[in-house]
Parts: sequence; structure tokens; C-alpha cells
Amino acid sequence: MRSARRKRDKIVLDTSIFVNPEVRNDFGNSPTEAIREFLKLARQIPELEFYMPTSIFSELTNFVSLEKIPGELLSVLYQKSPNKHELTCPAIFLYELIEDIRERVNKGLRIAEKAVRSASKEDERQIIHNMRKNYREALRDGIIDSKEDVDLILLAKELNAILVTVDHGAITWAEKLGIRWLFPTKFKEYLLSFIEKK
Amino acid sequence: MRSARRKRDKIVLDTSIFVNPEVRNDFGNSPTEAIREFLKLARQIPELEFYMPTSIFSELTNFVSLEKIPGELLSVLYQKSPNKHELTCPAIFLYELIEDIRERVNKGLRIAEKAVRSASKEDERQIIHNMRKNYREALRDGIIDSKEDVDLILLAKELNAILVTVDHGAITWAEKLGIRWLFPTKFKEYLLSFIEKK
Repeated sequence: MRSARRKRDKIVLDTSIFVNPEVRNDFGNSPTEAIREFLKLARQIPELEFYMPTSIFSELTNFVSLEKIPGELLSVLYQKSPNKHELTCPAIFLYELIEDIRERVNKGLRIAEKAVRSASKEDERQIIHNMRKNYREALRDGIIDSKEDVDLILLAKELNAILVTVDHGAITWAEKLGIRWLFPTKFKEYLLSFIEKK
Repeated sequence: MRSARRKRDKIVLDTSIFVNPEVRNDFGNSPTEAIREFLKLARQIPELEFYMPTSIFSELTNFVSLEKIPGELLSVLYQKSPNKHELTCPAIFLYELIEDIRERVNKGLRIAEKAVRSASKEDERQIIHNMRKNYREALRDGIIDSKEDVDLILLAKELNAILVTVDHGAITWAEKLGIRWLFPTKFKEYLLSFIEKK
């Protein structure tokens, strides 16, 4: 297998793989179980290197009991932030982001106006509940909206790695930067394919 | 003056210089008059080259009567878009933008919630009017929120030019990219200083 090992592929992982039930259930019934199962598979695959941005790792610790995770995890899943002070992104990316946000901001205002107009007719609590949902969908879904998202994309870019996440925003922007990504629901099968070949 | 001409400084101009009354009045009582006066000064200053991104120029044509502007303008004020497919911006810029927007989006939602809560007590039209104002301030003031803003900043960066604009968002982000800028209210005096030296 030496020739294969020489071109080791890198994988950048998001927390969502271990937290989002749709994908996590492939690995285990809880985030902690899912990580243990991932670890069991990952250490059998020397052809792949696994990375997680530090900010994402820190999110993950909100969901798992760190004392139940073998220290070995750290030798299989590297913590690394992107080199954010040296990396650059294409300016066209900035244009697309600003235009996207501009449209979303306008949409957010329309949602708020509609809520105010219906406020005298319906239950105020229900209106606010619905407005929050619609507003968040309009302003956040399918966009990179946190530094954790930026970390994921830039780390994948820096390492020329494959991104594995459930987040649509991160995938949309990975596409714009020509970053490879996997369907998260196929991630376990992908890992197994390396093991079964042996 | 040959030695001075060899290092000609470049200036990138925003529409706001000719439209915003606070600055425009230094040059004339209408955008058209302001441009004619600017042109009169600019052609006496071979030490400076003036640029305007095409998108900004196109905004300007909403305010001025083009037929009243001498064709000479185009030989004094160059139209040029930034090279947006080759330029890059530092990744750290992306982090700051995303964090800034995230906070603004949350603030926008709080404003909308407050408006809904007061909707049963006050005049609906007045509430919507105030909400729009507060929302736009929260989501747009001091941020680059249009492709025209991005054009201004990137063109100044590309040309290593001095940015002249009234837009606080553009100035804030020019600062982050180490772009030189002038207090817009001092722009006429700045131009005159070149002429008076002679």
C-alpha cells in the first residue's frame, strides 16, 4: 500500500457529523458513541488524515463527555485552525457574499413588516415565534454565518482536503471555492470502503 | 515638476462626493455643478489620477445630467472596475465581516420583536416606519453592503489609491485593508493645495 500512502487524502470534519441525528446514527446513538465508533474506523485507515478546526472541536465538547473519549482521538483527529492571517480568498467571493446578505436583509425586513401587520389580529406570542423562525431561515440558511463556518471552509481550502459537514451554507461556499466535499450520509460507507479493500 | 509627476498619486472617488450635500456644497449647488467644478480643478493637477468604478459611475448618472458634463470628464476621471476575478482579500477580512453581520442580524431580530410587541398599542404605520429606520441602521450603517462598496474598496486596493467617500462602511473596511483615505470634507482643500503650490 506504500504508493497509496504517499498521497494521503485529508478530511476536514464538522461537529454536525457527530451531532446531527440523520448522520450521527450511522455511527452511534449519542455523540460520544459516534465519536468512539468513528475513531475505531479511522485508525484502520492510514490512507486518510482527519482534521477539525479548533473552534469546531470546542463546539463538539458541548455535546460529548470528553472523559469517555480515549486520548487516542487526538492522534487520529488533528485539531488545527486555518492560517487565517496568511490565507486569502478570491475577491469575487466577497461580492457574492455581500449580494447574498443584501437580499437576505431585505427579506428579513419584509418578514418583520408582515409580523407587525398581523400583530393586532393574532396571538402575539405565536406571531413572534413564527417571525423568529422565518427570519432565521431567511438570514441564516444556506449562508456561512459564523466564524466556525469560515474555519471549516478555509481549513479545507488550506489543506486541499475533503469537507464533511451537514451544513448547507458551508457546502454552498465550499462549492464556490472548488473544495471537494462528501455527502455526509455516505461518510460511514466511504470510510468502510477503505477498510474493506484490505 | 517632473520628479513629482513620476510618482503620480491615484484617487478613487465615490458618487457621494458629488451627491451628499455636506461635501458637494464645497463644489457646487447641484451634482452637475459639483462635477463641473471638480473637473475644473482636476485638470489643473497633473500630479493626480482620478478613478471611479463603473458601478459607481453608473450610480452617478442617476443624479447628474450627462449632457451638461463636458466629454473631457472622461479624460480626467477614468472609469475602471477592480479586477475582481484576480484580486484576493485576506481571509481575516472574511471573519470580521461574518462576525459583524451575525451581530447585526441578531440586532435586527430584536428590533422586529420590539415592533411586534408594541403593535397593539400604537399606530401601525408609525411603528413600521420606525422599525424600518432602526432595522436599516442596525443592518447597514458602517458596513459594506453593496457591490458598489466592494468595488470602491477593491479598486483603491488594486491601484494603491487614496479613497474619497462619505460612506462610513467603506471607510471602516478601507481601514482594515490598509487603504489610504481622505476626510471627504477636506477634499476640495486637498485639491486646491496642489494648485496653489504652483
